[in-house]
Amino acid sequence: MTTRDVRIYGIGKYLPKQIVRAEDMDKRIGTEKGWVAKKSGVLTRHFIEDETASEMGAIAATEALADANLHLSDIDCIVSASGTVEQAIPSTASLIYQKLDPNHCGIPAFDINSTCLSFVTALDHLSYLVHAGRYRHVLIISSEIASVGLNWNHKESCSLFGDGAAAVVIGPTQSGESSQIITSRMETFPQGAQLSEIRGGGSRNHPRNYPDELNMDDFLFDMQGEAIFRMSARLMKGVVKRLFTQSKDRAPLTMEEMKLVIPHQASLMAMKLIQKRLSIRPEQMLIIAQNHGNVIAASIAIGLYEAIKKQKIKRGDRILLLGTSAGLSIGGLVLDY
Amino acid sequence: MTTRDVRIYGIGKYLPKQIVRAEDMDKRIGTEKGWVAKKSGVLTRHFIEDETASEMGAIAATEALADANLHLSDIDCIVSASGTVEQAIPSTASLIYQKLDPNHCGIPAFDINSTCLSFVTALDHLSYLVHAGRYRHVLIISSEIASVGLNWNHKESCSLFGDGAAAVVIGPTQSGESSQIITSRMETFPQGAQLSEIRGGGSRNHPRNYPDELNMDDFLFDMQGEAIFRMSARLMKGVVKRLFTQSKDRAPLTMEEMKLVIPHQASLMAMKLIQKRLSIRPEQMLIIAQNHGNVIAASIAIGLYEAIKKQKIKRGDRILLLGTSAGLSIGGLVLDY
Repeated sequence: MTTRDVRIYGIGKYLPKQIVRAEDMDKRIGTEKGWVAKKSGVLTRHFIEDETASEMGAIAATEALADANLHLSDIDCIVSASGTVEQAIPSTASLIYQKLDPNHCGIPAFDINSTCLSFVTALDHLSYLVHAGRYRHVLIISSEIASVGLNWNHKESCSLFGDGAAAVVIGPTQSGESSQIITSRMETFPQGAQLSEIRGGGSRNHPRNYPDELNMDDFLFDMQGEAIFRMSARLMKGVVKRLFTQSKDRAPLTMEEMKLVIPHQASLMAMKLIQKRLSIRPEQMLIIAQNHGNVIAASIAIGLYEAIKKQKIKRGDRILLLGTSAGLSIGGLVLDY
Repeated sequence: MTTRDVRIYGIGKYLPKQIVRAEDMDKRIGTEKGWVAKKSGVLTRHFIEDETASEMGAIAATEALADANLHLSDIDCIVSASGTVEQAIPSTASLIYQKLDPNHCGIPAFDINSTCLSFVTALDHLSYLVHAGRYRHVLIISSEIASVGLNWNHKESCSLFGDGAAAVVIGPTQSGESSQIITSRMETFPQGAQLSEIRGGGSRNHPRNYPDELNMDDFLFDMQGEAIFRMSARLMKGVVKRLFTQSKDRAPLTMEEMKLVIPHQASLMAMKLIQKRLSIRPEQMLIIAQNHGNVIAASIAIGLYEAIKKQKIKRGDRILLLGTSAGLSIGGLVLDY
């Protein structure tokens, strides 16, 4: 079975207070004025001032609940779907739950992590539990703080990222509604596992071995942008073809029938390539990187928020969520909003 | 729907090379000889020598595949279900996949984290995708390195833990087989979110702020054992009651019908309390902490391995997986093996 009778009930978003313009980034990383704007195309991004990931996630979740006309007590499961965590222990979902209402209890809360594809993976997997009736309403939150892990000496990567959060409430499709998740797929290519990394912070390169055995660079984001770009370019088309044709019970999907493609906002260059390789018309492509940057797993979730709130999609429209992540993974999900 | 036609096809385990006896721990943490044995009841545990989490996970997974009489190419999804990660990026599942076969590609790989309940959460959630036919065979791996994050000044907590890994392959139940997942439930009580923590390592207390703003203790495990014990004692019975009675389509389950209870091996004291509070007979209770310690999410998975390999359960037997985790969460899953 690939189709699930699941609908997005509501959506919310939060961007942290500090707005960092391309020229501010030029100053911060020591490039000449205009370099960041030209190289990354990211004109503004938000960085946290004093916000935590759980605070941002809770604000986005509160908006999503209100948008769905639901209360926290209506929620049956809370999933943090993020490439970054707030603390090593406990799960970020527990911390978001605590911020939503410190007196509430009983809702299961846990994390799903497939780096930049975490939101798509959570939406994909939890939709089966909603379809089966295990959960009625599931709250999925992507809250990402990229800024704290950036290496300011890696000018290319640190000019791309921003912080932010988005959340959705999903639930069962009601009779008379056409919303559904049509199909989804992720493929991991571990040959690319070392192409984007933070090598430290886990059990392998523990902070207790710093500074004796480890360098601070081990705890900061390290990306081989060019190699990721080439690998994704080579593999993306095949993954999307399999995504579109994998359902035996329906005719193959086509890019033409997608009202909108919401790609992971890895970089403007990467999105341009995807658009060209997959024959996506410019008006089908949602690009929000210019004023958000790459917000890790929140990129696609914020893209969905912008698409809905700016009325680029309406109920019943077919859309494609599509992205790459560290791993290296490529994944997509087609849904009728 | 609560029942899923899912069966455990195979299981594997790996314990790292270094065996640490209670008296070795006494020396290491400076307690008098016999203190660790008496206080924790953990007589031996394994700590890594040079192993990584992905190596341990890959060895356990390889055994699980052989036990299931399957190859890596038969697997449709790889989930790392662990409370610890190997690196901050990418997912541990990607790294395990790479260790299983660096030339293989295409299987989706991602992480699920609900700390000590990660294995149960992954088994629970992925079973819906197997039942629905999305995936045929799913590989779930819990590989935990606790030792690197222990605070040697916290004598009580560090005497409890061990390192290790276990993995299962799940797939659809075939006609004529009685295996199924009967019911499952997790409840999170965020009032206990600060009772067991590693405050650092994520976006909130990043290693880059050490040593100026952070203490090394912020990156090490901190547990308020007494408070967790009291909170779990108060809440456990209610969660299990709801777990046993939540299915409207079947008579309530009883503890009596469980052939075996495989609890999270939090501590011998905690398991004794659970046994008493839930009226579990001693012969129903699987305890492996004496020679494994608390192996975080791998505890229940290793318990399942021991139960199967030592023939404490046979096909068709009904068992209960039951645990607590940071968050604070309490969860259980009933299955017919």
